[in-house]
Amino acid sequence: MEKVGIVGGGSVGLLLASYLSKSGFHVTIYTKTDEQANKINKMGITLESGMSLTRVRVKSVTFSKIKEFNDDILFLAVKQYNLQEVVSTLQNLQGKVSTVVFMQNGMSHIKYLNKLISKADNVYVGIVEHGALKRTPTDVKHTGIGVLKIGCYFENGNHPIHIWKRLSEVGFLTEVHENWMDIMEKKLVVNGVINPLTAIYKVTNGSLLTNNYYFEAMKLLFEEISSIYNCTEEDWQQIIQICHKTSQNRSSMLKDLEGGRTTEIEAITGVILDKANKLGVHLPYNQFLYTGIKGMELQREEGGL
Amino acid sequence: MEKVGIVGGGSVGLLLASYLSKSGFHVTIYTKTDEQANKINKMGITLESGMSLTRVRVKSVTFSKIKEFNDDILFLAVKQYNLQEVVSTLQNLQGKVSTVVFMQNGMSHIKYLNKLISKADNVYVGIVEHGALKRTPTDVKHTGIGVLKIGCYFENGNHPIHIWKRLSEVGFLTEVHENWMDIMEKKLVVNGVINPLTAIYKVTNGSLLTNNYYFEAMKLLFEEISSIYNCTEEDWQQIIQICHKTSQNRSSMLKDLEGGRTTEIEAITGVILDKANKLGVHLPYNQFLYTGIKGMELQREEGGL
Repeated sequence: MEKVGIVGGGSVGLLLASYLSKSGFHVTIYTKTDEQANKINKMGITLESGMSLTRVRVKSVTFSKIKEFNDDILFLAVKQYNLQEVVSTLQNLQGKVSTVVFMQNGMSHIKYLNKLISKADNVYVGIVEHGALKRTPTDVKHTGIGVLKIGCYFENGNHPIHIWKRLSEVGFLTEVHENWMDIMEKKLVVNGVINPLTAIYKVTNGSLLTNNYYFEAMKLLFEEISSIYNCTEEDWQQIIQICHKTSQNRSSMLKDLEGGRTTEIEAITGVILDKANKLGVHLPYNQFLYTGIKGMELQREEGGL
Repeated sequence: MEKVGIVGGGSVGLLLASYLSKSGFHVTIYTKTDEQANKINKMGITLESGMSLTRVRVKSVTFSKIKEFNDDILFLAVKQYNLQEVVSTLQNLQGKVSTVVFMQNGMSHIKYLNKLISKADNVYVGIVEHGALKRTPTDVKHTGIGVLKIGCYFENGNHPIHIWKRLSEVGFLTEVHENWMDIMEKKLVVNGVINPLTAIYKVTNGSLLTNNYYFEAMKLLFEEISSIYNCTEEDWQQIIQICHKTSQNRSSMLKDLEGGRTTEIEAITGVILDKANKLGVHLPYNQFLYTGIKGMELQREEGGL
């Protein structure tokens, strides 16, 4: 039986760990704190999905205590702003891992993908369109049934197709896509529209549809982003679909702001603005949202909210 | 002794009533509700300014009960979105009043100025740069010592210079300006920068200076507005000065949002966008803020916040 490791005990890490464990894999989750690792070792992880509650047994180790690669497959489910540190640590480890999957939002982590090629046979990117809410260090709710899209960045061995298949079988839909850049850009556009708007207005995803003015703002923002990415009417419909499906959800950016954590504004709107800058295009709505969210992060640090 | 009437029992109405009463005028304040009128008749108005508390006796009448002009001078201190109704009522009254002063923010009330010319010898606009906070229906705090700028729109009699003089003497600085359009536009620019930003970020005026990102956003917004109004470095410095002087204040737009009231976004950013539209200029930051604040108003109505 293959051993699967997940770095990161956030909502995506817990969700993935639960489903992988349900699929029959030996799962180890690498957490930031000893406290969370101890709790998970003691209580397992509780997964809420629809009306069902499942409790799975999962091993947990504090990330800083890893000494060598012990898993065949490693998912990196940490936020983009923690990735640099995680990648450095993994580069220094003894041995190799068969497969690494990067699970970050946005696109600012592309620069780290090459760094693990010498440490892994296969490097993939995973684009998470599932919704997850971490309730406690050991409880996660699957709030939006979506797809985990897997894109191949570098492959030098056997593609672990059986993992995606088994995840899909237990209710965590997974798809393999040829063009990883394209699906990442599509996700970037979705996140670039929904996340900053819901964060600045402090509303659920569904409010972007029900409030005419927010809907108008969403449309303006989408059109602006479309001017530098290759977006179609279908992409716009997909954003609307996602807001529908996750109407009661608070976006990760809003939750991060509310929880006093750093948001992924750099990895999302920051990347969009970088691209625009290289193309010599001015994206005022994105610029304004970027500045506003950065300001709100700073305000939280200062305890001003 | 001249009789002075003030229509509107909000923060500006109460502030003005207190200072006029301190100056020795017979003051009547016309309120929207019987409840506020009764309280003011019973308790007077308490004015807090710096370390001093002053209680003044002021007469109060519910606005809808006015049957004819009883005052020599009438200040209209209602929000712009209530002005249409107030002006219609005044147009239907018997008699005439010597002087009417419009005290609205923004510039969307210009269209109402002519309507009272047949009912008044003098029509003025008052641009309030004082800060005021209404604590209760009978208590007001003078939170920012500024200037009341008086501009002449139409004059057919004696300019009541003694009123401005006596107001200044008791601590409510008042200045007469020749070019009313110019001072209104300057105030519009100030409000157009400070109000929507503080409302969307939900911060005090001072945060626009202390938070680097908010400061950046303020600068971007000012530059955009400057492209259609004739702004100078001096105007920018004045905005900074106002944020300094009123650093602990929450702007009227933020207070309106928090109190579930209609904001003055139409009279401020709406007017700026109208002008831009006529000039064929696109002001994306203003457009985005306008849409956002309108969305927040709607959200409040729906009880969503």
